[in-house]
Amino acid sequence: MKKILNDPEAYVDETLAGLCAAHPETYRLVGEEGRAVARTTPGRDGKVGIVSGGGSGHLPVFTGYVGAGLLDACAIGDVFASPTSEQMADAIRVADRGAGVLRLYGNYGGDVMNFDMAGDLVEIEDIETTTVLLADDVASAPPEEAEKRRGVAGMVYAFKIAGAAAEAGLDLAGVTRVAQKTADACRSVGAALSSCTVPQAGKPTFEIGEDEMEMGMGIHGEPGVWRDTLRPADAIAEEMLDRLLADIEIGGGDRVSVLVNSLGATPHEELYILYRNVHARLKAAGAEVVMPLVGRYATSMEMTGVSFTLCKLDAELEGYLKAPCDCAFWIVK
Amino acid sequence: MKKILNDPEAYVDETLAGLCAAHPETYRLVGEEGRAVARTTPGRDGKVGIVSGGGSGHLPVFTGYVGAGLLDACAIGDVFASPTSEQMADAIRVADRGAGVLRLYGNYGGDVMNFDMAGDLVEIEDIETTTVLLADDVASAPPEEAEKRRGVAGMVYAFKIAGAAAEAGLDLAGVTRVAQKTADACRSVGAALSSCTVPQAGKPTFEIGEDEMEMGMGIHGEPGVWRDTLRPADAIAEEMLDRLLADIEIGGGDRVSVLVNSLGATPHEELYILYRNVHARLKAAGAEVVMPLVGRYATSMEMTGVSFTLCKLDAELEGYLKAPCDCAFWIVK
Repeated sequence: MKKILNDPEAYVDETLAGLCAAHPETYRLVGEEGRAVARTTPGRDGKVGIVSGGGSGHLPVFTGYVGAGLLDACAIGDVFASPTSEQMADAIRVADRGAGVLRLYGNYGGDVMNFDMAGDLVEIEDIETTTVLLADDVASAPPEEAEKRRGVAGMVYAFKIAGAAAEAGLDLAGVTRVAQKTADACRSVGAALSSCTVPQAGKPTFEIGEDEMEMGMGIHGEPGVWRDTLRPADAIAEEMLDRLLADIEIGGGDRVSVLVNSLGATPHEELYILYRNVHARLKAAGAEVVMPLVGRYATSMEMTGVSFTLCKLDAELEGYLKAPCDCAFWIVK
Repeated sequence: MKKILNDPEAYVDETLAGLCAAHPETYRLVGEEGRAVARTTPGRDGKVGIVSGGGSGHLPVFTGYVGAGLLDACAIGDVFASPTSEQMADAIRVADRGAGVLRLYGNYGGDVMNFDMAGDLVEIEDIETTTVLLADDVASAPPEEAEKRRGVAGMVYAFKIAGAAAEAGLDLAGVTRVAQKTADACRSVGAALSSCTVPQAGKPTFEIGEDEMEMGMGIHGEPGVWRDTLRPADAIAEEMLDRLLADIEIGGGDRVSVLVNSLGATPHEELYILYRNVHARLKAAGAEVVMPLVGRYATSMEMTGVSFTLCKLDAELEGYLKAPCDCAFWIVK
């Protein structure tokens, strides 16, 4: 197990301790169980709160995106495991500034169940909540079952854009509308070249040959759509973009942001080799690429692989995407 | 070879093409061979220029740090190979705003030879240059042979602090003095858990057992000081900090920045587990940790492992460290 850790049971709590020690101006632990993180400087009174949550092992997702112009708080589960409803309720309570709270997270069964219960818990405390689910992974279900799709890196756009809408003063219905519009505008697909290792399991989640890759694999190792010999970068980029463009129309005059994301081990060099292909193709289609993101925005610890996300923009979404934000992983001035 | 690439011979040029396509507001290719990158918006007339250069495969080092408040230009070699003296001269020429140019880079034989020749090439064009070498890797030579040490992640501090000094209007002698003071204030040490693969070699640079780590390994796989069973995170952090503190005194009242850096595959989660230990220990020693950096600042592509860098600050260095900068990999507001 090529991981740097102490007790596997302490992996998440020690990560959070380090995160808060390194960036005390941004993050603080809250909640009785120490499994919610909130902005050190809360949003102003009357601002709509935004919370997310989910399993650990995806930094900067989810906790890293707590910050000004982004999330107000986040509930943190063990690696690849949902937080409890009580931890989620802790996050909602601290995020509430009197204008209600949007629950904005990925479509996974355990998270949905627990966030629904958390909503019930805070409802009796007169905190109004709404929900927007990310379900952007096109490889996880066909278009006619789009509601079954998993949420992956599209949530990065949703956090950013909804966070800016909340900072701009929209009410709960308005922030929820903008978040849902963002979720509807995002499509993602991933490809894995290696597994990662869950600390408590102590061995890779799956085996994959030294010369193999798996197209469409999920961020927890959920099965993809094919496994075959590792292909050249341009062939990978072309197939991944094909899969996205089959699901959302991008053409002449459209404005789109694209996230070329490392799942962990794949280095920046290789992300740029892929981005070069994606950029040229979108440009050739007459689309304008706006604020491309290339880096590690949503990971599976040390997994080798990449994901692409397209976020098709209208003027409202583009304005919020470009608005300022500030966390330890993403600053927009 | 678990790498996402096309032709191994094109790895660097395709990376640079993608970098410049993604961030045209920051980076532009210059020079006849397309192996120098400059700021898209040059520094003002009369500002001292700062150039770096070295082999590829270390993003954000070196090229990524071209930007406002950082480097003016950078020469880029093949993976782990020095740029040519002509490529370095290209970088110096474009960085020159009439006030001379500091060559600021790591202590490697090929880079020193070529940067010296590049200085000769531009001297006849009346461009004045100075040199500051980073030699911060304490594992690469004992203190009595400190001038033989390799330059590693300490250059991140040197780029940032010298870059701010140049923006502040210091002359070439002044920027050179500040850069040398930063180099003298930095100590680094690394530990590797896996090799990376140089694209043109097509196989890992070295073999290492599934349960092994190597303390003190260099960023190109240069031999370290011991190889043994992988240790717990706290034991690794303690030995690495011990090695740094044996070489530079940090005690009560001192102000120090610390960089906990992933060599590539090691995820943010594990960096924070390590940082938690380092922070507690420096605090217990009475030192104040200023602007800690935790992330991927100087990598070896997909190598698993970490490095620690300490940068001991005085008021001048701290002021420049905290000054604004802006590149695709590091924004300080």
